[in-house]
Amino acid sequence: MTTEQLINQIETKKSFLCIGLDVDLTKIPQHFLETEDPIFEFNKAIIDATHDLCVSYKPNTAFYEAYGIKGWQSLQKTIHYINEKYPEIFTIADAKRGDIGNTSSMYAKAFFEDLQFDSVTVAPYMGKDSVEPFLTFENKHTIMLALTSNEGAFDFQTNPELSGINGRELYKQVLETSKKWKNSENLMYVVGATKAEYFTEIRKIVPNSFLLVPGVGAQGGSLSEVCKYGMNESIGLLINSSRGIIYASNGIDFAEKAREEALKLQQEMKQIILNK
Amino acid sequence: MTTEQLINQIETKKSFLCIGLDVDLTKIPQHFLETEDPIFEFNKAIIDATHDLCVSYKPNTAFYEAYGIKGWQSLQKTIHYINEKYPEIFTIADAKRGDIGNTSSMYAKAFFEDLQFDSVTVAPYMGKDSVEPFLTFENKHTIMLALTSNEGAFDFQTNPELSGINGRELYKQVLETSKKWKNSENLMYVVGATKAEYFTEIRKIVPNSFLLVPGVGAQGGSLSEVCKYGMNESIGLLINSSRGIIYASNGIDFAEKAREEALKLQQEMKQIILNK
Repeated sequence: MTTEQLINQIETKKSFLCIGLDVDLTKIPQHFLETEDPIFEFNKAIIDATHDLCVSYKPNTAFYEAYGIKGWQSLQKTIHYINEKYPEIFTIADAKRGDIGNTSSMYAKAFFEDLQFDSVTVAPYMGKDSVEPFLTFENKHTIMLALTSNEGAFDFQTNPELSGINGRELYKQVLETSKKWKNSENLMYVVGATKAEYFTEIRKIVPNSFLLVPGVGAQGGSLSEVCKYGMNESIGLLINSSRGIIYASNGIDFAEKAREEALKLQQEMKQIILNK
Repeated sequence: MTTEQLINQIETKKSFLCIGLDVDLTKIPQHFLETEDPIFEFNKAIIDATHDLCVSYKPNTAFYEAYGIKGWQSLQKTIHYINEKYPEIFTIADAKRGDIGNTSSMYAKAFFEDLQFDSVTVAPYMGKDSVEPFLTFENKHTIMLALTSNEGAFDFQTNPELSGINGRELYKQVLETSKKWKNSENLMYVVGATKAEYFTEIRKIVPNSFLLVPGVGAQGGSLSEVCKYGMNESIGLLINSSRGIIYASNGIDFAEKAREEALKLQQEMKQIILNK
């Protein structure tokens, strides 16, 4: 998918919502456990109930790998279902991969070719040659961790002891350095919503890039704050919500309640887009 | 597996060799492609030919994920084969995972419980709460990236612009900080062999930890240099070789040639252990 197609979808749906498909079998309505593939059946119901309110789905690979081959099968069925039934949706494999060059190429193949995701999240620690193999794929997007929403982000990403002579913390250095990589126009970045005040600084470095923003809702981030400091001309944000939507209810009304939660966010986003 | 069992194995075998099972279907003897599971059959042959010369096998997950469900099945069969036939072997899932706390727990389950690896590699960028969930598993080991063997290591890990007021580069800060995490005695670290001179500094911070060392052979690192600066009282090193061993030949003599290459390294290691 091209960036233009993503932007068009945002404008049409008046939404920049991404729904995280992080399925924990202990949290879904228990009647699914009687089906042959509970994870896929749950995802399918959530997707059917919310696809017109969001522009992206983001399965986190950990929740599939934890169930071994069966989990990997559920992941494959989920991405195929989205690609076939809702091809306008921007799909994200939240995998946080990264390795030496020839190995990163194999990961890129896994997510872009075998599973046919539009994008994959990667970790920056190993630098340029661990990310560039992902960037060579046309109309595929690589979403690199910059500033994450968890407490551990303070350990290294924003640690002032690592800000060096130019006063630039690690997350800024990561953003700045990555702009020089080959095909860097295929990069997007993960920036946690729990740190809204950082968006101003981040937009100085990457004014035009899309930012994938976890941490709204369950993790305490504010949508309006993030938009105030993080939005750009083409919106430039994908706001993720996982637990707040998919576990809105674990009764038989789970899909309806998920839609209600997604609709609340979409309506807020619509206002923000219209008032822009 | 306990650290003591690993050390005992090193002493018995006079080896601290780890063999990387990074199987690329284009590089293995082509007759395997006629079998039902070429990756597993190749691994099995390599393992049977080398298990007495090494103490560890390390499949890199990228090479399995690239082949989708079939690849994940090959990974599962490989780890089960090792655990059943050679239970003394220390197994490493080279996965470089890491995510927010509840998600890292799912990854830990995937590799420690579902696949039953002894250890898994993780990335440090997201800090404490992304690594601690791995550390709670008893007799399981978490091998965190510190200083990698690739060129991109200079982007952030050793970048002097990120060395801050205390003059400590990122990789040192990562080592130092991780020592304070809960159950940090279950940590080992990845340190690339291509940077042998760094081992002296690293040993000042983590004198007792095991270091997993990629980059000997194909990537140009020297075994004797690494041992000179990196070895501790209990050896404390796992030296990995992947391509140099498993692709020593792609003819029908591939297993024999792999054994020859493994034997060369083991003999060098034996001398180093005896001269210690």
